[in-house]
Amino acid sequence: MSEQDIEQYRVHEAPYYRPVGDELELYRAAYDARMPVMLKGPTGCGKSRFVEYMAYELGRPLITVACNEDMTAADLIGRYLLDADGTRWQDGPLTTAARIGAICYLDEVVEARQDTTVVIHPLTDHRRTLPLEKKGELVHAHQDFHLVISYNPGYQSLLKDLKQSTKQRFGALDFSYPEAAVEAEVVAHEGGVDAQTADKLVQIAHRARNLKGHGLDEGISTRLLVYAASLIAKGIAPAAACTMTLVRPLTDDPDMRETLDQAVATYF
Amino acid sequence: MSEQDIEQYRVHEAPYYRPVGDELELYRAAYDARMPVMLKGPTGCGKSRFVEYMAYELGRPLITVACNEDMTAADLIGRYLLDADGTRWQDGPLTTAARIGAICYLDEVVEARQDTTVVIHPLTDHRRTLPLEKKGELVHAHQDFHLVISYNPGYQSLLKDLKQSTKQRFGALDFSYPEAAVEAEVVAHEGGVDAQTADKLVQIAHRARNLKGHGLDEGISTRLLVYAASLIAKGIAPAAACTMTLVRPLTDDPDMRETLDQAVATYF
Amino acid sequence: MSEQDIEQYRVHEAPYYRPVGDELELYRAAYDARMPVMLKGPTGCGKSRFVEYMAYELGRPLITVACNEDMTAADLIGRYLLDADGTRWQDGPLTTAARIGAICYLDEVVEARQDTTVVIHPLTDHRRTLPLEKKGELVHAHQDFHLVISYNPGYQSLLKDLKQSTKQRFGALDFSYPEAAVEAEVVAHEGGVDAQTADKLVQIAHRARNLKGHGLDEGISTRLLVYAASLIAKGIAPAAACTMTLVRPLTDDPDMRETLDQAVATYF
Amino acid sequence: MSEQDIEQYRVHEAPYYRPVGDELELYRAAYDARMPVMLKGPTGCGKSRFVEYMAYELGRPLITVACNEDMTAADLIGRYLLDADGTRWQDGPLTTAARIGAICYLDEVVEARQDTTVVIHPLTDHRRTLPLEKKGELVHAHQDFHLVISYNPGYQSLLKDLKQSTKQRFGALDFSYPEAAVEAEVVAHEGGVDAQTADKLVQIAHRARNLKGHGLDEGISTRLLVYAASLIAKGIAPAAACTMTLVRPLTDDPDMRETLDQAVATYF
Amino acid sequence: MSEQDIEQYRVHEAPYYRPVGDELELYRAAYDARMPVMLKGPTGCGKSRFVEYMAYELGRPLITVACNEDMTAADLIGRYLLDADGTRWQDGPLTTAARIGAICYLDEVVEARQDTTVVIHPLTDHRRTLPLEKKGELVHAHQDFHLVISYNPGYQSLLKDLKQSTKQRFGALDFSYPEAAVEAEVVAHEGGVDAQTADKLVQIAHRARNLKGHGLDEGISTRLLVYAASLIAKGIAPAAACTMTLVRPLTDDPDMRETLDQAVATYF
Amino acid sequence: MSEQDIEQYRVHEAPYYRPVGDELELYRAAYDARMPVMLKGPTGCGKSRFVEYMAYELGRPLITVACNEDMTAADLIGRYLLDADGTRWQDGPLTTAARIGAICYLDEVVEARQDTTVVIHPLTDHRRTLPLEKKGELVHAHQDFHLVISYNPGYQSLLKDLKQSTKQRFGALDFSYPEAAVEAEVVAHEGGVDAQTADKLVQIAHRARNLKGHGLDEGISTRLLVYAASLIAKGIAPAAACTMTLVRPLTDDPDMRETLDQAVATYF
Repeated sequence: MSEQDIEQYRVHEAPYYRPVGDELELYRAAYDARMPVMLKGPTGCGKSRFVEYMAYELGRPLITVACNEDMTAADLIGRYLLDADGTRWQDGPLTTAARIGAICYLDEVVEARQDTTVVIHPLTDHRRTLPLEKKGELVHAHQDFHLVISYNPGYQSLLKDLKQSTKQRFGALDFSYPEAAVEAEVVAHEGGVDAQTADKLVQIAHRARNLKGHGLDEGISTRLLVYAASLIAKGIAPAAACTMTLVRPLTDDPDMRETLDQAVATYF
Repeated sequence: MSEQDIEQYRVHEAPYYRPVGDELELYRAAYDARMPVMLKGPTGCGKSRFVEYMAYELGRPLITVACNEDMTAADLIGRYLLDADGTRWQDGPLTTAARIGAICYLDEVVEARQDTTVVIHPLTDHRRTLPLEKKGELVHAHQDFHLVISYNPGYQSLLKDLKQSTKQRFGALDFSYPEAAVEAEVVAHEGGVDAQTADKLVQIAHRARNLKGHGLDEGISTRLLVYAASLIAKGIAPAAACTMTLVRPLTDDPDMRETLDQAVATYF
Repeated sequence: MSEQDIEQYRVHEAPYYRPVGDELELYRAAYDARMPVMLKGPTGCGKSRFVEYMAYELGRPLITVACNEDMTAADLIGRYLLDADGTRWQDGPLTTAARIGAICYLDEVVEARQDTTVVIHPLTDHRRTLPLEKKGELVHAHQDFHLVISYNPGYQSLLKDLKQSTKQRFGALDFSYPEAAVEAEVVAHEGGVDAQTADKLVQIAHRARNLKGHGLDEGISTRLLVYAASLIAKGIAPAAACTMTLVRPLTDDPDMRETLDQAVATYF
Repeated sequence: MSEQDIEQYRVHEAPYYRPVGDELELYRAAYDARMPVMLKGPTGCGKSRFVEYMAYELGRPLITVACNEDMTAADLIGRYLLDADGTRWQDGPLTTAARIGAICYLDEVVEARQDTTVVIHPLTDHRRTLPLEKKGELVHAHQDFHLVISYNPGYQSLLKDLKQSTKQRFGALDFSYPEAAVEAEVVAHEGGVDAQTADKLVQIAHRARNLKGHGLDEGISTRLLVYAASLIAKGIAPAAACTMTLVRPLTDDPDMRETLDQAVATYF
Repeated sequence: MSEQDIEQYRVHEAPYYRPVGDELELYRAAYDARMPVMLKGPTGCGKSRFVEYMAYELGRPLITVACNEDMTAADLIGRYLLDADGTRWQDGPLTTAARIGAICYLDEVVEARQDTTVVIHPLTDHRRTLPLEKKGELVHAHQDFHLVISYNPGYQSLLKDLKQSTKQRFGALDFSYPEAAVEAEVVAHEGGVDAQTADKLVQIAHRARNLKGHGLDEGISTRLLVYAASLIAKGIAPAAACTMTLVRPLTDDPDMRETLDQAVATYF
Repeated sequence: MSEQDIEQYRVHEAPYYRPVGDELELYRAAYDARMPVMLKGPTGCGKSRFVEYMAYELGRPLITVACNEDMTAADLIGRYLLDADGTRWQDGPLTTAARIGAICYLDEVVEARQDTTVVIHPLTDHRRTLPLEKKGELVHAHQDFHLVISYNPGYQSLLKDLKQSTKQRFGALDFSYPEAAVEAEVVAHEGGVDAQTADKLVQIAHRARNLKGHGLDEGISTRLLVYAASLIAKGIAPAAACTMTLVRPLTDDPDMRETLDQAVATYF
């Protein structure tokens, strides 16, 4: 892979990231030990942003893969393509990352077929190798290569969970929504509203998050608060902005919608 | 993609669209913030027409994808095709839209395999990127690109629903049948009948819509009212026209058919 | 497609069709309005023959697709084939019909995978377009193109039914077995027997149709009556001809076979 | 297809077939009317042999397809193959039979995926056509083409049965084991044993057939009796020959084996 | 296929096989009548060795196919491969065997998808043909061709069993573990231990075989006894050798392991 | 395969392995007898390291395959690839190992589809052959070839287990966590901490392992202890290091997390 191709995976500007605990220090130590890392937490709380931030700080390229049920091992590792001169091997994102020493981030890895995750095993122990069985090549990972996965424990079920033999290959960091003051700071910065409006939005979110498990599958994420703020910043009335971004996407249940609408009405 | 190819996706004439609330204003603000938008509502109430109208108004090409269960990620993103000189990459509709700055409308997205929808994630957050993993390219979306999805909450089931991590990437707009006066206006304009006939058709629809959940899966849509009007305009007796377009397509249940036939007989 | 290729889809001789109600008038009006049409009714009652008759009368080519569970969207729309010079796009029957202005008849559409039917949606509303996503082309349907589907309500089940968003894109015509006099006329004409024999066969059918739902899944169709008549016309004894064509194909249940045999014995 | 290729499907010698009723006459009339025929009966009772005999008598080539669950429509109809000059269409057995005017015999059609059988529909009504959708060709069947299917009603289940819309396209002939005298004649002729030994074997079979449904899924077929006779003709002791061919293949249940062994011991 | 290619399937040295009944005589008679043969019995009791022995004795090449659930009809019959000059047909093992007159041994045929086994039907009756439908060729089997299948009745279940129409095409031979004296002879010969040690191993096996159905799915096979003997011959202490080969492979149940360990301790 | 290609599979440095019983002696005897070996034990207890150690000691190349549910027989055996001159056969890892005389280690073989494991059968008995059915070649294994599989009995279920006919082809070795003193030695050596810290980590693990089956699916593995030690060696506070590596990866259950946290707090 040419230096130019690698360039597209570099994070050129520092992403906005507001640390909420000792996650920076722990990640750095894990990276120094080349220990694979698992990020756990609900949707929209900043896991992807965190990885991007660490990639920027450590000066490593970042290759992100959004995992899904249809993903096969070949989608990670690579495959033969037909060329003018016959077949040509095309590295997959995991192989590319292993070769160029990138951080490879497998987002929502629990969505991938449980057994597809087995292909990452030899990269996560002392061997740090990736067998390309179809090519008959054994890739030894670049010394800077690092593997990071994320998953949302709320989705766990008997059918979809990582195997212990996979879990026990990662150190794990828990993520959650930031505390109120920090989250308001994020909403104001990212959504372009004043501190007071951001505070109100965060308070609405806190009310909704208490409903998780009592009619809501998931609370309002920081991302949705930023969405609401963005609409307000574009001149939309706050109540309409909140309905569009904090209520309607979450649920179609009339009772739950009314509860959320009332929470909005309390503040706007 | 050549300018000529883009041209085929442009909406050249203003589609007939009758606004029913603040949906134009909200969409424009969401577009300005490049916030992805989800349109919710029953079949045949005008969601597709609305997107077409917004594409015309904003002067953007519109690429529509009718989602279905057999659709794979490759159908959205693209694939390698064999050429005289080997393989050639063919962008899928989502990739095309991201490159040319089109509005990409994923119709009935809930029909797609739940995890296929994961591929739109990196296009819907601050990254606005689309990784073409098979090609080893990271597409940065055109600044005018906008993503819109639709789905019908009535179809929701435990097996088929969007994941929260997908839902929480969209602002949402609710759609429903327009109020009587507006709907009659639409039926008269589109179906070519006089106001009185249109009124009667809308009243039949109102009766049928009350049966939703009491034997009917779905009410009579505006589209079917326009169908009935069209047949009447072609000289078919109104009762026969209504039977063919408002009763028989909806249900095979004899009792329900009789109830609907009586509703028709009340007006024609 | 060359004019010669189109020619093979033309109906050159008037098919024998005996109207049973106002179906000719209704179809013509629907065709004039380019409203898609759904034909409902039991097997072997003449739905396919009716479409053929209308195609002949309207002077349009007819492209019939027998739908089945293995049919993919590509089977309707088209696919890339490998050629001496690389890949070549091959239109599917739906695309061909849309281009040349044929009547496209999707027979037993309910057999197709429920979500495959989604691909016909953009052809059935005001857009009248067919996106060939794999080719990156948006086909605008020929002004004479018409879409007709058939299905047998008796097969409906929770697993296999058209979605409301599909149903509500069609005007519907009910088909059933013709009344006794008309059906006897058809049997005599098609099977080559005298009026009296035809009468007897129709009366046997009437007895059997009363057993539908009481041990028989479906009544004896007009087609089977024509089969019986044909064997009789070839010199087979009527009772043996009826056993072979009206009893044995329908059921393997000994009681039901005896009941049907007695019905035959009453007349022959 | 060259005359030489057709030649391989011809039946050059009269197969040994012993008629048991009016099946020859009925088949000939059905063939004259080109009415598709369905053969019903248990395994090993002579259905395949009967079709071969009719093909010989009518002087038509015979193309047999052993249906199975993995068979796709393309296996019947044909597919594109890659050639030195690009793709080349290869007719499937059904298409070949339709073109050359052969008898096409779909053996155990109920094993094919239920909806795959839909592809034979347009060949079985007045149209007698076979649309090759992938090739864009509409094959008009040769005037001598005839379609025959077989199935074993004993296998019928809710999951695997022909649809009524398929069944009602065939005249049906029932097959069963021949009566004792006829069957002994067949066993003696085919197995090379004297009349007395053949008699005994048939009597053993009669005992076993009474156990069908009482511990045995299926009775002893004529084919197995011929197997037993063949071993006896090679010098194996009759009891050992019967155990190997009439008992062990049928069942692993110890009680049932003992019952069958006793039946054998009664005669040998 | 060149004579050299056939050579690789020949059995050049007489395999060690110790007859346990009249199986040699019965197989020879079945082979003379070209009657297909089914071998029934538990794992590791010598079925594969028996076929090898018969192939050696009859001087026929032997082609063995280990059947599995993923095996398709094409894996047995053959397929088109892409070549420098387009596609080239590659015979599968069944086709090869039919052409060169080999014994084709389908091992554990019940593992193959039930309906895939249908492809062997025309090879197992008087026709002795194999239709290569994709190639449009009808292979007439070589006069020396013979078909043998094996299956383990212990695996039978409602989901996985041969159909009667398949079973009734074979003569069947039962296999079981040899009697004590014969088995000890085999173990001593194959494992390289003295008669006394072999005796003890066989006695341990007899104890374990009584546990079949009472906590063990299957008894200790002759093969495992040979394994134990081999380790003892290499100098491993008998108890350790037995634990590694007779206990641990069979079960992970602690109680059952203790029972087996005690059986071992009784003798060593 | 060139000597250079083989070189990449050689183990050049002695892996750190601390024997815990007579496993070295037993493996050597099994290897001398070329008896296939099955390694049983929980995740992260050193099975892969053991195989690597034996490969180093015996001077054989080692080819490891991480088995998974999507793995087909072709992934083990090989397949045809398209080349400039047509197709070219590419050996799979099992075939390569059989040809070059490597140790082939199928890791977590129980993850592979149960019936895919059937392809290893002819390599595991006296034949030591591997039929490449698609290539029409019968590979006779190199005299040094050895087959090793691993599986974790804790994962066994009715749906996923090896068949007896597979199990009875292997001698088996049980693996477990080493005793405290040995494990502390390993943790200190691999993780870079002093003996006292290593002791504490092992004692935490012992507490957690008692919870297996009482809320934990699996105990803390030696690998995770090494992870914890590595973070401590990088300067992370021991409690934080333990939380990240010993608690969070294992479970999301709040009660179980608290129990584990308390176990950590007892020592650090």
